Amino acid sequence: MSVHQQELSVGTRGKGTTEVTAEVACIVAESGIAAGTATVFCQHTSCSLVIMENADPSARRDLERWLDRLVPENDPDFVHTLEGPDDMPSHIKMALTRTSETVPIARGRLQLGTWQGIFLWEHRAQPHRRRLVVTVMGE
Amino acid sequence: MSVHQQELSVGTRGKGTTEVTAEVACIVAESGIAAGTATVFCQHTSCSLVIMENADPSARRDLERWLDRLVPENDPDFVHTLEGPDDMPSHIKMALTRTSETVPIARGRLQLGTWQGIFLWEHRAQPHRRRLVVTVMGE
Amino acid sequence: MSVHQQELSVGTRGKGTTEVTAEVACIVAESGIAAGTATVFCQHTSCSLVIMENADPSARRDLERWLDRLVPENDPDFVHTLEGPDDMPSHIKMALTRTSETVPIARGRLQLGTWQGIFLWEHRAQPHRRRLVVTVMGE
Repeated sequence: MSVHQQELSVGTRGKGTTEVTAEVACIVAESGIAAGTATVFCQHTSCSLVIMENADPSARRDLERWLDRLVPENDPDFVHTLEGPDDMPSHIKMALTRTSETVPIARGRLQLGTWQGIFLWEHRAQPHRRRLVVTVMGE
Repeated sequence: MSVHQQELSVGTRGKGTTEVTAEVACIVAESGIAAGTATVFCQHTSCSLVIMENADPSARRDLERWLDRLVPENDPDFVHTLEGPDDMPSHIKMALTRTSETVPIARGRLQLGTWQGIFLWEHRAQPHRRRLVVTVMGE
Repeated sequence: MSVHQQELSVGTRGKGTTEVTAEVACIVAESGIAAGTATVFCQHTSCSLVIMENADPSARRDLERWLDRLVPENDPDFVHTLEGPDDMPSHIKMALTRTSETVPIARGRLQLGTWQGIFLWEHRAQPHRRRLVVTVMGE
């Protein structure tokens, strides 16, 4: 059993999902671990993770638009507005999605389903540089 | 420390939750691992996992109905509709719940709370055969 | 590689978030594990976990209020109401947030981002004593 850990730096272009499956798969390959898990962790509270269909981009766009509508900016109940109208909605969208995701590894590869991809979901309007930590554990 | 990994195939009857606690507990018992974690991973983007009360089924039905109302079919904003009106709502419901869930193991048993059960939540209208991967790690 | 597991008992004061970062960090320090993961697991279905900004408390209050509004009490569609009007909303809020959260450990410390804290989120109106299980695995 061993642990292999690596940071991923991801540049986002403002609101939307950025696929990181290939980068995580690469860290798994470098780890030399054949069976176990890869835990992806997002070190932020205004972006998040989601495992989503990666074939047809329209599914992701519909998901993004739906969540935008559920958590609109300029909610009159928001008090935490110092960083702009997209600040508080970003925290809420993060809380409704995921900060950590653990994917099984078998035969040295991520065991994602056929249509699954791992995405970093930027909730802020402006581009940001985001840090993920990938921890591969197993044997 | 060792890793024990097994796939679970679950037949669903269309929209709704199916308990898989006993099946996961069985894999934990077979692993021989006394202390560690069991990670359940759902290899799909139109069904998901949730850990929910397993005593009174009305709690699950209320949860299912509430989410149905939050994410209705035939949303005029949806573009990704080729696979039917339940396709896009399924992806959204999946994103709002969980793809992976990690449960502690102690004394060879899952450390779920008294009222907790692990459920596969089918979001598509039609029955499907679904694959979960259970990874038990520990000593 | 080794496993270190410990229970945390947290008293809540009714609805709201209680930070448990220091308690989890303490268990990580006691484990002596330098690299790996800490999995926090909530053994209940009417409270949950969230990793949220821990600097400005107004961000948490806005998040709590927003979720209260999304999942109001006394929904006429609820059947599971025996334990009071806050029972079913508690289960729904739990399902929309997290039961388990896995945080990386490096150099013997939790690798949370600068603004991240780990919170237990009580969804019931009354104070409760809640149990979390923290599993530290690594080397």
